[in-house]
Amino acid sequence: MFEAAEVGRTIAKEVWDLEVPQLRADLLAAQLALRSTRVPVILIVSGADGAGKGETVNRLHEWLDTRGLETHVFGPLTDEERDRPCYWRFWRTLPARGRIGIFFGSWYTDPIVRRVYGRSSTTELDDAMARVAFFEKMLVEDGALILKFWFHLAKKEQKRRLRRLERDPETSWRVSPDDWKHFELYDRFRKHSERALARTDTEHAPWHVVEATDDRYRELTTGRTLLAALQRAVTPAAAAPPAAPAPPAAAAPAGGLTILDRVDLTRTVTDNAYRKELAKLQSRLSRLAREAYQRRQSSVAVFEGWDAAGKGGAIRRVAEAMDARDYKVISVAAPTDEERAHHYLWRFWRHIPRAGTMTLYDRSWYGRVLVERVEGFATEAEWARAYAEINDFEAQLVGHGMALAKFWLHIGKSEQLARFREREQVAYKRHKITDEDWRNRKRWTRYEEAVNEMVARTSTRAAPWTIVPANDKRVARLTVLRTLCRGLEQAL
Amino acid sequence: MFEAAEVGRTIAKEVWDLEVPQLRADLLAAQLALRSTRVPVILIVSGADGAGKGETVNRLHEWLDTRGLETHVFGPLTDEERDRPCYWRFWRTLPARGRIGIFFGSWYTDPIVRRVYGRSSTTELDDAMARVAFFEKMLVEDGALILKFWFHLAKKEQKRRLRRLERDPETSWRVSPDDWKHFELYDRFRKHSERALARTDTEHAPWHVVEATDDRYRELTTGRTLLAALQRAVTPAAAAPPAAPAPPAAAAPAGGLTILDRVDLTRTVTDNAYRKELAKLQSRLSRLAREAYQRRQSSVAVFEGWDAAGKGGAIRRVAEAMDARDYKVISVAAPTDEERAHHYLWRFWRHIPRAGTMTLYDRSWYGRVLVERVEGFATEAEWARAYAEINDFEAQLVGHGMALAKFWLHIGKSEQLARFREREQVAYKRHKITDEDWRNRKRWTRYEEAVNEMVARTSTRAAPWTIVPANDKRVARLTVLRTLCRGLEQAL
Repeated sequence: MFEAAEVGRTIAKEVWDLEVPQLRADLLAAQLALRSTRVPVILIVSGADGAGKGETVNRLHEWLDTRGLETHVFGPLTDEERDRPCYWRFWRTLPARGRIGIFFGSWYTDPIVRRVYGRSSTTELDDAMARVAFFEKMLVEDGALILKFWFHLAKKEQKRRLRRLERDPETSWRVSPDDWKHFELYDRFRKHSERALARTDTEHAPWHVVEATDDRYRELTTGRTLLAALQRAVTPAAAAPPAAPAPPAAAAPAGGLTILDRVDLTRTVTDNAYRKELAKLQSRLSRLAREAYQRRQSSVAVFEGWDAAGKGGAIRRVAEAMDARDYKVISVAAPTDEERAHHYLWRFWRHIPRAGTMTLYDRSWYGRVLVERVEGFATEAEWARAYAEINDFEAQLVGHGMALAKFWLHIGKSEQLARFREREQVAYKRHKITDEDWRNRKRWTRYEEAVNEMVARTSTRAAPWTIVPANDKRVARLTVLRTLCRGLEQAL
Repeated sequence: MFEAAEVGRTIAKEVWDLEVPQLRADLLAAQLALRSTRVPVILIVSGADGAGKGETVNRLHEWLDTRGLETHVFGPLTDEERDRPCYWRFWRTLPARGRIGIFFGSWYTDPIVRRVYGRSSTTELDDAMARVAFFEKMLVEDGALILKFWFHLAKKEQKRRLRRLERDPETSWRVSPDDWKHFELYDRFRKHSERALARTDTEHAPWHVVEATDDRYRELTTGRTLLAALQRAVTPAAAAPPAAPAPPAAAAPAGGLTILDRVDLTRTVTDNAYRKELAKLQSRLSRLAREAYQRRQSSVAVFEGWDAAGKGGAIRRVAEAMDARDYKVISVAAPTDEERAHHYLWRFWRHIPRAGTMTLYDRSWYGRVLVERVEGFATEAEWARAYAEINDFEAQLVGHGMALAKFWLHIGKSEQLARFREREQVAYKRHKITDEDWRNRKRWTRYEEAVNEMVARTSTRAAPWTIVPANDKRVARLTVLRTLCRGLEQAL
């Protein structure tokens, strides 16, 4: 990929002087138009040391309205970042819709550097790039515009530039010992970068390899490329959602039967046995949570289920067993406007627990393939691709070493009716039942289908679903506690 | 204060059994009502080691709806926290309106512990408590309900409890070597805590010292106190804004003259001199910014001024001189709904720069005493108390070692008119001029008054205002650059 960027391209000063004023005006106009779109722009700046990455970013700041612009530099991980999956630092810095985020250093940096220094294998680099490609695809499908620039310098040219930077007292600070170390590894760096780029040069997020020798050529090319991309992004035609992909082959319930039909809802437990078992499990969980805290083992528990299935009660039994310092309950309500301005997973990313603690999600990212699917809040294309997005997200949690448990609390349709009726009659329960609950109930079959497909598509070995029989609340609570205990035991 | 909590109060099991069910139902109802208020609840849990703080927090989690509840524990500072003023960790965790935040450890912990270990003087403890009192008053005036619990144990009792906790394998983990060290310092701890409490036992945020020997007494008292406070907070009468204090004695402009009238707007500079000086100052700032990054010196620059005074242009000249990695421009637009759910300073707190970098605020917290005052978006009570709140906030920035610069870009009324007209005529400037600008212009005199009072009340030695003559944009830009350079030089 890099040969094409070693041909000695330059831009004459006259061309620059002639073109830049118009380019700046056009960039500002495009940026202004961007503000009212749903498009977040992610501009990745990468390439060889000394290739003028910093200068180019500065130039973009000069050309664009800095008020709609943010630049993120990724240095060493902070301790808050180290406690979470490695993409967390990117998750939390992704720009909101209508804004431009310049990523100085990105999800490419670490995998390439590790490979160059021999700290990872080619297979590992390839795996990392597959994850990158998936992540970028997810963002683009959500409406993002991703612009990836690679500023390339031939080996000789890099040496010349590092020398020149070092000589000038104004710029010598830009050259670190690391830069010279990288230079000695130029050939390795080139080889592995080329491989990384080839594997992530996708239709939705192509690479722009820019010959970096001539400052004017480098900066003008970057500006022109950005302008063209912005202009495409803000034209109404382009802003339309991409054509929906063919609907996925749904895990069609054989003979109308779903996974849920196989749940034994008749299971029950005596009051006495329940009390004994509950005490035993809670004390076991209590010990495990304590150990998890000491050993910095974090966990995530997801609670989904029919309305009135007893999610709240189950969560309370878990919480009772834990120290309030060690867990957080995230109750998923309507998204805030900041949440709506980001990818739908963003509102869950923000609550990923720090090392040693647990986040309990009372409803979760699965809303995308449940309520949003059934109620039509998400398009078919959106919920259809969410399965893979969720699997990847959960794989990152598990990959970081977190314990992950997912519960679907299942009750029969008539049991639900009985509980709705009871809630209507008890004063302090009345607020729990709303018109929405009755509306959802009418769509029981469609929810059943959605649950079935959800479980079929997202029950992975690393993150399996637990279908909890919940007609007897006591059985449900014990099942949840037992599953959490086992998960923590395995993780520890 | 503590003698009253050493009288041996207990609650019999029968009383507990009788009262708790009703208390729980009432707490849930009050918490539900809280959700639709503008009241954030801050519940501070503090007191002696082994006094059952953790157990009490767990009990509250059991009694309340955990979905409207969050618990924050403050352990060692993270590196992201160390980079900011010491209240930043609290700023970022304050609960949103309608929610309850339990603070396990709080702004009291560090000052008391420092004093007990002899790492600070009594005067320093008193100063810290004065800041606490101010901070709490600010939150309460903004609608917060602050509940401060101090769980007290007599010396003998503390020893007994630590022993008991240690003997039981289920609870021995709760006793750390630090706890025994604290115990040996019991008398010092008691003395300094008592002093701290006395100085912060205010009308708006009184202390509740609870005798902690008997678990049932401690927990029931806490529950009852919380319930009473919640019930008061959710009754419509109490939710009404407090009576406006007497308007502050405005720094009345003598003979109708304001600070702004003393600005020499005729100053100008030739094009040639401007270009030379600009280059000199930008290169000086560039060097300083680099040094600041290396020495982890952060800074904050605030830009206020009349519409069309040239804030954007001045900010651009500053940005040009810096590496895009080293600064952020925060453009203050309408608050998001998450921002509206917090104290008005919250939206600025979130952007406090990390060590070594600069945040440029394009409009700022001064909106409270400018546009919000003039347009009536804030009540008189709100903007009147904002001067002191802002002074305290800025004192914290400066106290943390940040360089702080505040600019008011001043132009004459006729110069503004000329600029508005020009903007209307130039295609790529037209988006900069809105009806709002024309409306603000009609209120020139009232803005003048507001600016005058703002400067008079918030120009402190640590954080002085720079009034920038901006009829000549070039003079304005040079003034801004020069001031920033000087500020950084001093800080470094």
